[in-house]
Amino acid sequence: MHPLDKINLNADLGESFGAWSMGDDPAMLDVVASANIACGFHAGDPLVMRQTVRAALARGVSLGAHPSFPDLQGFGRRRMDLSPPELEAGLVYQIGALQGVAAAEGGRVTHVKPHGALSNMACADAALAETVARAVRALDRDLILLAPAHSALARAGERAGLRVALEVFADRAYQDDGQLVPRSQPGAVLHGAEACWPHVQRMLEARALVSVTGRHLPTTIDSVCVHGDGAGAVATARAIRAGLVAAGIAVVPLPQLPG
Amino acid sequence: MHPLDKINLNADLGESFGAWSMGDDPAMLDVVASANIACGFHAGDPLVMRQTVRAALARGVSLGAHPSFPDLQGFGRRRMDLSPPELEAGLVYQIGALQGVAAAEGGRVTHVKPHGALSNMACADAALAETVARAVRALDRDLILLAPAHSALARAGERAGLRVALEVFADRAYQDDGQLVPRSQPGAVLHGAEACWPHVQRMLEARALVSVTGRHLPTTIDSVCVHGDGAGAVATARAIRAGLVAAGIAVVPLPQLPG
Amino acid sequence: MHPLDKINLNADLGESFGAWSMGDDPAMLDVVASANIACGFHAGDPLVMRQTVRAALARGVSLGAHPSFPDLQGFGRRRMDLSPPELEAGLVYQIGALQGVAAAEGGRVTHVKPHGALSNMACADAALAETVARAVRALDRDLILLAPAHSALARAGERAGLRVALEVFADRAYQDDGQLVPRSQPGAVLHGAEACWPHVQRMLEARALVSVTGRHLPTTIDSVCVHGDGAGAVATARAIRAGLVAAGIAVVPLPQLPG
Amino acid sequence: MHPLDKINLNADLGESFGAWSMGDDPAMLDVVASANIACGFHAGDPLVMRQTVRAALARGVSLGAHPSFPDLQGFGRRRMDLSPPELEAGLVYQIGALQGVAAAEGGRVTHVKPHGALSNMACADAALAETVARAVRALDRDLILLAPAHSALARAGERAGLRVALEVFADRAYQDDGQLVPRSQPGAVLHGAEACWPHVQRMLEARALVSVTGRHLPTTIDSVCVHGDGAGAVATARAIRAGLVAAGIAVVPLPQLPG
Repeated sequence: MHPLDKINLNADLGESFGAWSMGDDPAMLDVVASANIACGFHAGDPLVMRQTVRAALARGVSLGAHPSFPDLQGFGRRRMDLSPPELEAGLVYQIGALQGVAAAEGGRVTHVKPHGALSNMACADAALAETVARAVRALDRDLILLAPAHSALARAGERAGLRVALEVFADRAYQDDGQLVPRSQPGAVLHGAEACWPHVQRMLEARALVSVTGRHLPTTIDSVCVHGDGAGAVATARAIRAGLVAAGIAVVPLPQLPG
Repeated sequence: MHPLDKINLNADLGESFGAWSMGDDPAMLDVVASANIACGFHAGDPLVMRQTVRAALARGVSLGAHPSFPDLQGFGRRRMDLSPPELEAGLVYQIGALQGVAAAEGGRVTHVKPHGALSNMACADAALAETVARAVRALDRDLILLAPAHSALARAGERAGLRVALEVFADRAYQDDGQLVPRSQPGAVLHGAEACWPHVQRMLEARALVSVTGRHLPTTIDSVCVHGDGAGAVATARAIRAGLVAAGIAVVPLPQLPG
Repeated sequence: MHPLDKINLNADLGESFGAWSMGDDPAMLDVVASANIACGFHAGDPLVMRQTVRAALARGVSLGAHPSFPDLQGFGRRRMDLSPPELEAGLVYQIGALQGVAAAEGGRVTHVKPHGALSNMACADAALAETVARAVRALDRDLILLAPAHSALARAGERAGLRVALEVFADRAYQDDGQLVPRSQPGAVLHGAEACWPHVQRMLEARALVSVTGRHLPTTIDSVCVHGDGAGAVATARAIRAGLVAAGIAVVPLPQLPG
Repeated sequence: MHPLDKINLNADLGESFGAWSMGDDPAMLDVVASANIACGFHAGDPLVMRQTVRAALARGVSLGAHPSFPDLQGFGRRRMDLSPPELEAGLVYQIGALQGVAAAEGGRVTHVKPHGALSNMACADAALAETVARAVRALDRDLILLAPAHSALARAGERAGLRVALEVFADRAYQDDGQLVPRSQPGAVLHGAEACWPHVQRMLEARALVSVTGRHLPTTIDSVCVHGDGAGAVATARAIRAGLVAAGIAVVPLPQLPG
């Protein structure tokens, strides 16, 4: 376990589409060190992707693909049943598209993080997780897979020989088995810096997920995921960054973490 | 002008979508040396793209992106009015997606050829052509732009410093200014090897577009475009290939032409 | 149970999309008495819908909406997880769109039959079936719900007070519980008139679903579903119609069956 | 010319899509008497349409279809080149879909107003305008066509025998020929109640479009179009309504205007 002097902060960005805008990307890009950029299947369109890439590069924020099921209307949050070859090809397509956009702006995609229902399913379903890992590896073995700690997705990435970065969520409570408390249950989502920062701090100190009952599930923590949508979200994200910095932990892009 | 001992044959491929199939791609991949592969905006989906890339690579057929306006229902044949940044980003997205798919199959995209209404418009409109060339160059300066001889698109590619391959159409008649006879007019489309091969032969001998009135517009001819949809189309394409070979002209992938 | 002197034959039609064509609709419209017309979510587009409606009306074939999950690329065959209000609104939208197209051609939509994964799920899941029935009833209480015999969908339709027409499949084998043998198992699909017609005949005589083990599940049979895609499919459909007519059973549109 | 004791106020509503929201529909529904509801091609989805219909009906706001080119990413603002049968079928589809949604909520669509680029093109192009009018008439001869005064669209509606309601824009300046000053020119858009209400008042008093140079183009004015997006837009719309009411002009839904 490396000494915790560096950590990553990541957020989902580029989720506007056409005439519709979502989130405050400029503000969040000043907070995070890595951006998970929507690739057009659940959000984002080519122009939004390009603008997001440009804005991220201008701030030294590293670029990640945030691929999804093909479901714009459902924002990628509806479970879908794709065959493994369909899913794998769809992931390659989305990541490749963002790589193209990044190249056009003089940058490089350095990580991949699945979105929404795809992510939820891949965190619990080993076969699906393997398909995701296979898509990433097929495209570029140097891509970092950003995955929740203690997830089937993280394990699949490791088995596939990918570099895996493990993340914890600043604003989500964990069950004793390391899964997130479902949003349908009370206390699933933490609100405000006064709830989120102590949650993060506890996990960093314990080097473990800390469940709602206080159980510790030891893990390396490479990255903290923050969210930018919702009223106080940007302020919360800023407070978490400030907390990390005050604790002497440098916030760095994913590729700058020790491999 | 290089001695005509090598030429390229290209066709539009990978135009199936989901449950719908179009064309006889395996047959055409045995005829052509370069494939223009639909990128999901007018035809093709990630799985179709991957299967097409794999089949092309297995036969040594070089890979080209065939990007379009975003218009699946209209098969990219309806004129649309996109702003230059929208169009440029959309092209980068599509080409990047195919690059990703190619990489996942161990291959490389080596050329770009716009599709349908986008191509027609870019052949006549210098500003639009410049946007296309800018997208290609932003992505990868080594990509070959495959463009009709005597088109605004070819000129824009050259001005942008891209390597441009000039194509003639085996089955389309030309007007005196080098533009295609519109499909609405009689004689616009040539049918069968007995019409198409002499047309190609005439142009190769003249090293010129030969219009319906017999006018010659001198041009290098790097590639001949054949079509695979329609009853006798594959047979016609085969006959043209056979004619070229019989004339001692090697049919080679675009990257093997002298730059 | 009414004397079996009338029956309906139905097929899925209008499944072309844009430049892609599917099935031989004119041939099938001469065989069936009711058409399940795709509504643009899994297949069909406004122009295809209008042409299909026109062709059906010209032959006295009654019009049915064939709504689906929103999944053009997957042809509505991929399971999706929509909330009840989303699904209900989507069904109303699709049926309403076909009603509009029918009205523009001087006709009327008289039945609804869900497509693909939505149908499969609604045949087994009572809550989903109820959502389907609620959508149909909200739109027009006189619409007939065409549903597989012994399905949760049929039961939900009856509970909702809808007129339900029960169908059997000419080319699908049944399990002992009345569910279809999954396509992944051998013998799931029957091929050719020599297999399909005796299957239909057996069920009509028994007034029951007849399972692969010979078990009878008594049911009214209002309609026989035939398919038009695949090589010999139209011939098989014709043979089934001929068999019915030879047996003295009139093939009539759904609205002409005794309520 | 009827005495001006009644007028209609209309706005474009239901332009959210999936996870993205746009405009303040509840506020605008308290201001206008008729809603132009997006039908899913440029904005809106089935659930948004249903919620908008329900909210409009609850306030006695009359329902109109706001159909568009099929262009979600471009919000229907990009010119497209559809064949007349394609366009006509697409309009019928969209209006029919909203009719279905309205029926499911116990309401009725009573008018149609084309959106964006389609509207702009149909205001200037008589053939396109005729296609729009033909679609409306094919569906339901009692539908009111809401069209800008002095437009090709209004003329086509009248020629088709439709009831046409003529609208003026509260926030747009007119040229001497009755066309809108293009948005690219200074002064094209009026901002705030202090600019918009005098503009409306002037036109109502003159019973004419009043151009930027002061030229009068006499016209009946059945409706005033207000917009709800943008910072002060709702306040401006409220002020216009208040101005009308203070002038003794009742704001009524389109069907309550004298035919």
